[in-house]
Amino acid sequence: MTGVDEGAVDLVRLIRGERLESVHRGHAVICDGRGEMVEAWGDPAALIYPRSACKMVQALPLVESGAGRDLTERQLAFACASHQGAAIHREMAAAWLADLGLAEADLRCGPQEPDDRPERDRLIRAHAEPCQLHNNCSGKHCGFLTLGRHLGAGPEYTEIDHPVQRAVRAAFDETCEFQSPAWGVDGCSAPNFTTRLDALGRAMGRFAAARADGDARARAMVRLRRAMGAAPELVAGERRACTDLMRAMSGEVAVKTGAEGVFVAIIPALERGIALKICDGGTRAAEATIATLLIRLGVLAAEAPVARTLTHGPIRSRRGLEAGRIEMAI
Amino acid sequence: MTGVDEGAVDLVRLIRGERLESVHRGHAVICDGRGEMVEAWGDPAALIYPRSACKMVQALPLVESGAGRDLTERQLAFACASHQGAAIHREMAAAWLADLGLAEADLRCGPQEPDDRPERDRLIRAHAEPCQLHNNCSGKHCGFLTLGRHLGAGPEYTEIDHPVQRAVRAAFDETCEFQSPAWGVDGCSAPNFTTRLDALGRAMGRFAAARADGDARARAMVRLRRAMGAAPELVAGERRACTDLMRAMSGEVAVKTGAEGVFVAIIPALERGIALKICDGGTRAAEATIATLLIRLGVLAAEAPVARTLTHGPIRSRRGLEAGRIEMAI
Repeated sequence: MTGVDEGAVDLVRLIRGERLESVHRGHAVICDGRGEMVEAWGDPAALIYPRSACKMVQALPLVESGAGRDLTERQLAFACASHQGAAIHREMAAAWLADLGLAEADLRCGPQEPDDRPERDRLIRAHAEPCQLHNNCSGKHCGFLTLGRHLGAGPEYTEIDHPVQRAVRAAFDETCEFQSPAWGVDGCSAPNFTTRLDALGRAMGRFAAARADGDARARAMVRLRRAMGAAPELVAGERRACTDLMRAMSGEVAVKTGAEGVFVAIIPALERGIALKICDGGTRAAEATIATLLIRLGVLAAEAPVARTLTHGPIRSRRGLEAGRIEMAI
Repeated sequence: MTGVDEGAVDLVRLIRGERLESVHRGHAVICDGRGEMVEAWGDPAALIYPRSACKMVQALPLVESGAGRDLTERQLAFACASHQGAAIHREMAAAWLADLGLAEADLRCGPQEPDDRPERDRLIRAHAEPCQLHNNCSGKHCGFLTLGRHLGAGPEYTEIDHPVQRAVRAAFDETCEFQSPAWGVDGCSAPNFTTRLDALGRAMGRFAAARADGDARARAMVRLRRAMGAAPELVAGERRACTDLMRAMSGEVAVKTGAEGVFVAIIPALERGIALKICDGGTRAAEATIATLLIRLGVLAAEAPVARTLTHGPIRSRRGLEAGRIEMAI
């Protein structure tokens, strides 16, 4: 088990003029449907926090337990979301809580200013504060509350020994086939469990190979990956990498970003899963690298606008002059 | 001459729970008043774009030429600023342009949404667009326009062969004692010249050792470093690292950030200059590293709130829970 920095390789280079300006290093793995690694860059054994890139794993107990029996496909997509707090996201969280007979104050994710411009501007014009519904993880937390209700557990569902988090941890370790050695508090105050990058890739490979006629876990995996692909606007939002990438692949591949430079992809048609971590936590590099690997596997068209922008740029000045470009090292 | 990545060392580590989550690598140098390197981390020969960290060098021709004879000390500080587009910054840029008989449209920096919250919110409530006055470089551009007027040059002052940029390049190469091998377009559309990190550190050492009874260049260096220290609120803005660091050092040290992880410091009392570059361009790591080096040199109190926050954290969840911390590798 090694650190996040050891054995990393150059993944993304930023060129200004004709000179290298900045470089991002990291690790990436591609796994098959049996969870075997088929390709790797850097150190597959790097221990990482998956952050929000494991939300579809965190949602497994919600589906498998039957707690989410009455949830719509759109709610399942929302449970896997790192959304940008747009009106559709706020409204979906509010309606879900109302279905449970709960309110915004029952969330434990904390308030967050929306990244969505129209909603941000609406709040500012109304002299209103952002609330927990706007938190990018509010969908995941609605899922946690639904599972907690089903389990008859108490309201502090983000505590490490709460039945919800015990169920999440079990699903995470089982899906990764790796016992998480540590955990930390995520940005939304829920526990986030460390894992090896290849173990996270294995989990994504399992998600990709799961069949609708399989066992309860396989069926839950199929429902969640389909839900994400069917509602990319709920998983992130307009002009966000996850949404634009899933749209460019017609919803047939599920992708998910995580804070601090993590990204994963689930590719059912090829039975392949991808997981990657940028050592410095750089989002721009994680986005460029996942796009490059999806192009490499033939599921994302290199000429799709989102693919072109994420992997080539250009980098522009504020007046719109072309100042540089992105170059992929892989 | 080497790339920005080669020979870099770990500088900043982000710990979540008790595990390493992300790492930033880079290079740093400390130079004395004669421009000699006295301490270094990573590769001092790394070729970098200084970006906005060289604004006090870009302002030298403005002062030395006599073009800025009638400028106030506050205007000189503003010429060295990467400000956040607060009302005081917008008003200062507008007044400076009016003094020149010019208007916002004569700037060539492009519009930018202010990072300053009150000004940002004011624009949104007024349904008004940000303008070029809000661009973080509008002070530098007012300086360019003033120099251009003095030189009797044309309006396209950001072009590489414009007399203003020729004067800037000469001052940059002379101060760094290194001929820049390349240039690129900066975020504000002005040319930005590459240099070696140790050469940028040398320039900062020269700034630190300059005396008010020296030659024209030395006098210009003294005026600019004093102007920055005397008006830290103009150089960046409220809750910004440059402003808070200069305030914590009672304005006796001038510091300046640059995009893509660059930071410099000018320490007259010790006749020392600092320059550093984070390979991945991470601002949080550049801020943590400059604070650490200022503490190390004894000019920043380790217990000052800004020093503590930049070098230790804590990292908190959106609900305010302590989730992790920053650890310095040097």
